[in-house]
Amino acid sequence: MLSWTCPAPLRDQQRVVMGHGGGGALSAELIEQVFAPAYGGPGLSATTDAAALELGGARLAFSTDSFVVRPLFFPGGSIGDLAVNGTVNDLAMSGARAAYLSCGFILEEGVGIETVARVADALGAAARTAGVRVVTGDTKVVEAGHGDGVYINTSGIGLIPDGVDLRPERVVPGDVVIVSGDIGVHGVAIMSVREGLEFGTAVESDCAALGDLVGAMLAVTPDLHVLRDPTRGGLAAALNEIAAASGTGVVVQERAVPVPAPVAGACAVLGLDPMYVANEGKLVAFVPREHADAVLAAMRAHPLGAGAAVIGEAVEAHPGMVVARTALGGTRVVDMPLGEQLPRIC
Amino acid sequence: MLSWTCPAPLRDQQRVVMGHGGGGALSAELIEQVFAPAYGGPGLSATTDAAALELGGARLAFSTDSFVVRPLFFPGGSIGDLAVNGTVNDLAMSGARAAYLSCGFILEEGVGIETVARVADALGAAARTAGVRVVTGDTKVVEAGHGDGVYINTSGIGLIPDGVDLRPERVVPGDVVIVSGDIGVHGVAIMSVREGLEFGTAVESDCAALGDLVGAMLAVTPDLHVLRDPTRGGLAAALNEIAAASGTGVVVQERAVPVPAPVAGACAVLGLDPMYVANEGKLVAFVPREHADAVLAAMRAHPLGAGAAVIGEAVEAHPGMVVARTALGGTRVVDMPLGEQLPRIC
Repeated sequence: MLSWTCPAPLRDQQRVVMGHGGGGALSAELIEQVFAPAYGGPGLSATTDAAALELGGARLAFSTDSFVVRPLFFPGGSIGDLAVNGTVNDLAMSGARAAYLSCGFILEEGVGIETVARVADALGAAARTAGVRVVTGDTKVVEAGHGDGVYINTSGIGLIPDGVDLRPERVVPGDVVIVSGDIGVHGVAIMSVREGLEFGTAVESDCAALGDLVGAMLAVTPDLHVLRDPTRGGLAAALNEIAAASGTGVVVQERAVPVPAPVAGACAVLGLDPMYVANEGKLVAFVPREHADAVLAAMRAHPLGAGAAVIGEAVEAHPGMVVARTALGGTRVVDMPLGEQLPRIC
Repeated sequence: MLSWTCPAPLRDQQRVVMGHGGGGALSAELIEQVFAPAYGGPGLSATTDAAALELGGARLAFSTDSFVVRPLFFPGGSIGDLAVNGTVNDLAMSGARAAYLSCGFILEEGVGIETVARVADALGAAARTAGVRVVTGDTKVVEAGHGDGVYINTSGIGLIPDGVDLRPERVVPGDVVIVSGDIGVHGVAIMSVREGLEFGTAVESDCAALGDLVGAMLAVTPDLHVLRDPTRGGLAAALNEIAAASGTGVVVQERAVPVPAPVAGACAVLGLDPMYVANEGKLVAFVPREHADAVLAAMRAHPLGAGAAVIGEAVEAHPGMVVARTALGGTRVVDMPLGEQLPRIC
């Protein structure tokens, strides 16, 4: 029988390494061993992208993300687009339509005002597209050599509709796993402009706001079990988090996972696995079997879900573990990544 | 007649300078000329510390702050304390008791895990003291040389009580101006450990959460006109923002402003004006004259308001301008600062 144990390098690690920000096992350890003991509580969950709260009789989702992507502008988007869509999508994964955003800039002394203005314009345009309002902000400046042009934090709040309860703990064997489209696109788009890599075919980031797509899915049934946007750590990290938190196994049909040719090509050249490459405009859903066909149809009818596909299912076997059935009929374990293959992709 | 015009260096400024993060005129210009055109709207206000929103029938305050203080630990507190109290206080200035916080870390590769843990512990302790729960978080890591150990963003939400409407626009001539205690303490505490300055008497930061004090004030009357915590830019910036937004003049009796001897001494040595030095556990209130005595008494009965004092009033004369009556009977204009005298104090 296969057994999988989480690597635990933090205990031997005296200093922060890039992988602590990668959304994989190192990030999880930092949360479990440092942040949760310091200020964890019933509300602070490592298993959802947004917190679900009650305040003044309203059922709110609340989420935060900092953005340190390099470069600031890349094919298909910019740090301004990411700063909106990243937080809007975290809220959407709890079923909430983002209503309000905060926006905190940490600027590096010497960055051009024009660069800041271009980022702000992109952020504003993305907010209008997503239908969310930026209502509060903050700006700090740090000395040259203590930043990297522009860092942004956005936090967001939105209402969770009645009857919606999206958590990995709700996943049960038999649930159908659906992705909303091609994976690996954002990560490869960033790679294509970093480190001087070029892959022939231009790959543009899939960065997009998913609130409307989620709304279309919830209109089919509020009883989706869990949604996740597979950003840092890619689809592999998202599926592993869900498997671990739900205590079910996950089986993925490798051939069913939509990987566009330029992404597959770039990954082959670089020795990367598309399952681990970051996405910024995709989601993965665990859907009760009886609703799967209707949810898939609703996704395909939406521009951001046109490439939606069933890629696997939740199973009783190998609880907590993600296994891929390969095209040749074999199986392989899809591990939780330790860190991020490419740092600072969001 | 005196006339005051806001200096406008941004139009000649091609690059971000430290003063753009100082909370003074340069910060205001960045907001007015770059951020507001990009994503400003009815909700985004530069005249309040927190946004007041309606969501799901609840009246919410929502605020964000990034913290880049140097050093991370200083007499009387740390970046962890500031990260909680800064956002809790921004919410308190709208009358809201902070309910939930988000917490986003930007860590620099190579910073000690133990340092991160000490910051997290301080943040957790401050949250427990303030009665607020950290419910959602994020961690990013940037390469060595692109950060400064630990940067933190916190955002917070809280409920605004019925009948409370704190905005500078509500200030009217005759309002009494009250500060909750000694000013200039936080800024001098930071200076005392930066750049190797020592002032004989140790000055500890006044960093504290003001939600409870504000609760005591609102229990006297919900009809306070405006509250502000005079952080970056000090009391001078806070009073100027209120004067500009309200269109009234403000007169301050210089002798009535509580400045402790070590702060006065440090400022004299350094050529600084205590009115411009940052505070982190103080507030300034504009109170209808008929309630001023009762509000002052309630403040003095609270540990964080024991040193509260009436320092001036709103007047019809010189609208938008802050004037100090000096101890010698003269008057001087208290200008909006351009930037911050000491960068990165929060």
